Amino acid sequence: MTIQGVPAIVIVGGGFGGLAAAKALKHSRARVVLIDRENHHLFQPLLYQVATSELAPGQIGSPIRNILRNQANTTVLLGEVVDVDKVHRCVLVNSLDRQRVPVPYDYLILATGQQHTYLGHNEYQQFAPGLKTLADAVLIRSKILRAFEQAEAEEDPTRQRDLLTFVLVGAGPTGVEMAGAIAVLVRKSLKSEFRRIDPASARIVLVDKSERVLPAFFKTLSSAARARLEQLGVEVRLSCSVDSIDKDGVVIAGERISSRTVIWTAGITPSPAAKWLNAESDPAGRVLVKGDLTVPGYPDIFVVGDTSCCYQDGKPLPSVAHVAIQQGQYVGKLIEARLTNGLAPGRFSYFDKGNMAVIGKGFAVLQSGDFYISGASAWLTWAAVHLECLMRSSVRFSVFVQWLWTYLTGQRGSGLIIDQHGAQRPTAESDLPPGVKAA
Amino acid sequence: MTIQGVPAIVIVGGGFGGLAAAKALKHSRARVVLIDRENHHLFQPLLYQVATSELAPGQIGSPIRNILRNQANTTVLLGEVVDVDKVHRCVLVNSLDRQRVPVPYDYLILATGQQHTYLGHNEYQQFAPGLKTLADAVLIRSKILRAFEQAEAEEDPTRQRDLLTFVLVGAGPTGVEMAGAIAVLVRKSLKSEFRRIDPASARIVLVDKSERVLPAFFKTLSSAARARLEQLGVEVRLSCSVDSIDKDGVVIAGERISSRTVIWTAGITPSPAAKWLNAESDPAGRVLVKGDLTVPGYPDIFVVGDTSCCYQDGKPLPSVAHVAIQQGQYVGKLIEARLTNGLAPGRFSYFDKGNMAVIGKGFAVLQSGDFYISGASAWLTWAAVHLECLMRSSVRFSVFVQWLWTYLTGQRGSGLIIDQHGAQRPTAESDLPPGVKAA
Repeated sequence: MTIQGVPAIVIVGGGFGGLAAAKALKHSRARVVLIDRENHHLFQPLLYQVATSELAPGQIGSPIRNILRNQANTTVLLGEVVDVDKVHRCVLVNSLDRQRVPVPYDYLILATGQQHTYLGHNEYQQFAPGLKTLADAVLIRSKILRAFEQAEAEEDPTRQRDLLTFVLVGAGPTGVEMAGAIAVLVRKSLKSEFRRIDPASARIVLVDKSERVLPAFFKTLSSAARARLEQLGVEVRLSCSVDSIDKDGVVIAGERISSRTVIWTAGITPSPAAKWLNAESDPAGRVLVKGDLTVPGYPDIFVVGDTSCCYQDGKPLPSVAHVAIQQGQYVGKLIEARLTNGLAPGRFSYFDKGNMAVIGKGFAVLQSGDFYISGASAWLTWAAVHLECLMRSSVRFSVFVQWLWTYLTGQRGSGLIIDQHGAQRPTAESDLPPGVKAA
Repeated sequence: MTIQGVPAIVIVGGGFGGLAAAKALKHSRARVVLIDRENHHLFQPLLYQVATSELAPGQIGSPIRNILRNQANTTVLLGEVVDVDKVHRCVLVNSLDRQRVPVPYDYLILATGQQHTYLGHNEYQQFAPGLKTLADAVLIRSKILRAFEQAEAEEDPTRQRDLLTFVLVGAGPTGVEMAGAIAVLVRKSLKSEFRRIDPASARIVLVDKSERVLPAFFKTLSSAARARLEQLGVEVRLSCSVDSIDKDGVVIAGERISSRTVIWTAGITPSPAAKWLNAESDPAGRVLVKGDLTVPGYPDIFVVGDTSCCYQDGKPLPSVAHVAIQQGQYVGKLIEARLTNGLAPGRFSYFDKGNMAVIGKGFAVLQSGDFYISGASAWLTWAAVHLECLMRSSVRFSVFVQWLWTYLTGQRGSGLIIDQHGAQRPTAESDLPPGVKAA
């Protein structure tokens, strides 16, 4: 709401897109309000490294208000946006004390990303946690480490076997990177920490109904990734649909695999932004936006990043960090141009910085346009690009030191099980998946 | 249980005492089993820095099995000891899957430490969390940070006031160090992160029924500590008993202080080791041990650290880390001497390395024997001693870098709220204010 001639720009989401938009508005005379339901920006591409004990949560998460502390025109609010009122031009926010508060806007930028979905099988959630937030990563980390702890204490060989079986459902980037990281964890980092079990004997199964891993990459890279995974000892089971998941494991293509640690790395769905706006969406549910990233009919509402669907050269842009960042920057500049009657940029155009996935230690696949590579050189590029992207210099430095340390010694830096109720209280809330309440 | 002539030494607790004992037995031909209910050793003296966002959990916690990975004679088990069977010479362990497993011993070392107690008022626990584990620290950190988040979103000045009021119950080392750290947090680190509130206006109240802070220190140092706290803006309320604690705050000496963040820093009680052993204890509940730290009548059972009471020069030794470490080392050597028929050490003798507490930034109090100092020189000594004590070189380095960074810039490294259930999900219609419809 314009107060004394100062317009309000509301940004929903402090991920790559929202943060880029906020930063692009640093020198604007407008009031900027950034709302997120977490207090931190998350460097999501490295989340799997927290789940596999390599990095600590603080190395990939930074408080949003700390990142924006020197941006005097910007207010950061912790709260969950639950709807948009286009008539009264405000977003509705559930604040921490459960009050529903309207926050008025002149310009609205929705950058609310994606969440994981169980594709109609919400009952899987309690057995197979997904990986989207730091809390998820900490939960999965505890689950994996606790399986080894239990196996070390277990006398029964069958149960020991089940405890040392890890199943990942979904062979997209998250599943592939997790599988590789767990393989390195069990074969290298945990070596010599146990006396009764051999962590290297752990079975790691990666399942997907698709006929190749990393389906968004070129076929050659899918094959290279699969070969690398198998070399690391990962069982890759493709063209296999999951029949069921329960507390004893999974059933895939009619075969039961007993496992105490199943992780859900399939199924991503956009935020409900399309529903809030009552806007047209693509089949996945992402808001269809115009060339300037506005919603048709609402020139003051922008949708960026994973929750938007933007066509370029007849194809929708992929849901990757670089698209979100470039879109956020673009919208920030566009709004600023409108406010100052400056030169508005033309339609949004994505500069493809490539797409990559890392598999285990020192191996990655990378493609950009028609160009692709795999192996150690791709991994070095991956490491350089990710260090470059990590936001704060102090964070970047500590990640670099940690990677170097792990690379040279095999030792991981972050193997804590932090559990509200001590080691063994299986009914504790922390053992349950998000959203499930303990009795 | 001696298997093929190899005796079993069971150590319960991976704190300072237990770990020191395990390390002293590194070259023993005995089998050593170390049992803890957490998977990590914790550098407890710095726990308050995790609670106040300065350090990350991984900087003061290290997985026990990682610390002992090169000690081939030692097995680490995650589980909670719930009793000791002196007749069959075994400890009873609740394992992760809730089975009760007996672990037999030839020698037993109990190093089970202390826990906080609400002194008969367990109902306070839900309103005023205590600080003893990493999970506690993470919880308190979230509670403090969330109070500022809510205050930033709050329109009502009275509620904002309550959200910015922090009460610490208990002015021992934990309460004093927490109060100082929160004062620095609000006046320095959070500066410029908020737009609607001034974090520096926060009210910090430190309450104790004693007539001075840090009652275990010399009176001069108590006075110096109190003066420093008041200089930092902390309200010190002594000779005040707590009448009640509820969700709206505390009542002390008949006066209600409205606060949304009350932290329990009073009341410490030893582990139930005396009960397990059915042994004689001091009034606090600590096991009375002989000069060689054995339990009278049980020459193969040792109790070390905070859960034991050992007299020296007619006075019980204090419950501090250095006592536990020296006792653990002593017992390790004593058992090894018995196993090898070597020269057994005489009775345990504590070498007093002094006692310290830090207040805010660059100020500490320190006493050792009759010697005492306060101020910056004591703080430098404190920093050096604590860095020296932190276990692993990689940990030490990162703490040093973090302290230097915080000291120079005022920026904290670890302000994440990691919350299993997201910021708020008031999905139940009854939670919403009248007239507002759930999405």
